[in-house]
Amino acid sequence: MDKIPILRMGPFLLVTIQIDLYDRLAMNLESDLVQKVHQTGARGVLIDISAVTIVDSFMGRILGNIASMTRVLDAETVVVGMQPAVAITLIELGLSLKGVHTALDVERGMALLHTKLDLSTEMADDDADDTE
Amino acid sequence: MDKIPILRMGPFLLVTIQIDLYDRLAMNLESDLVQKVHQTGARGVLIDISAVTIVDSFMGRILGNIASMTRVLDAETVVVGMQPAVAITLIELGLSLKGVHTALDVERGMALLHTKLDLSTEMADDDADDTE
Repeated sequence: MDKIPILRMGPFLLVTIQIDLYDRLAMNLESDLVQKVHQTGARGVLIDISAVTIVDSFMGRILGNIASMTRVLDAETVVVGMQPAVAITLIELGLSLKGVHTALDVERGMALLHTKLDLSTEMADDDADDTE
Repeated sequence: MDKIPILRMGPFLLVTIQIDLYDRLAMNLESDLVQKVHQTGARGVLIDISAVTIVDSFMGRILGNIASMTRVLDAETVVVGMQPAVAITLIELGLSLKGVHTALDVERGMALLHTKLDLSTEMADDDADDTE
């Protein structure tokens, strides 16, 4: 199986990464996700990496890429379920996952997305020229 | 990775099957799921098999087992995202997935679970001696 399924849950997309992200699989995931965000008009992407035990700079870069790509399509990306060892490795590798939101589990990730989306709507109403 | 992550989403648990369910993996999934239902008091289990392209009688039996096990813990199981080819194979193998609910995708599966849970609560209120 060389495709990671992308599940639609209301305004969000959910991806569970269970296998090592090799080059082709990661590229497929990037393009599939961006297309799916475009098709569905999703406002948020949740990437569950609770099954990922080994992480390298490639994986870090892929997560960063996905976050940047979805952001230009007006969707926020939240990485959830990171194992403590993975967090340690990422920081030791000097990868701070800039631009990627994180949360402890899917539920908190969804709550974070809801807050972000509400906030960004309010901010747009209150102060339209506020830029990031 | 010899564990399939189980994600908690409110009163439901979500499992995405992305790799072939070999014996040990399937047994682990069964016991993990049953334990998680017990721990969390989940009322429904959603199993996404949209990435599964090949199915055999073992897989059919595992899905049936999971549904039976969770039912005795008062949780309903819905299998979602089945590929048309998988549906054809299952029926041709004579496996009708008795006791397993199915839905087209996760969203419809969740809607089905919500309906089932509401209905079963109402039925319990209306007519406590109604048995399946």
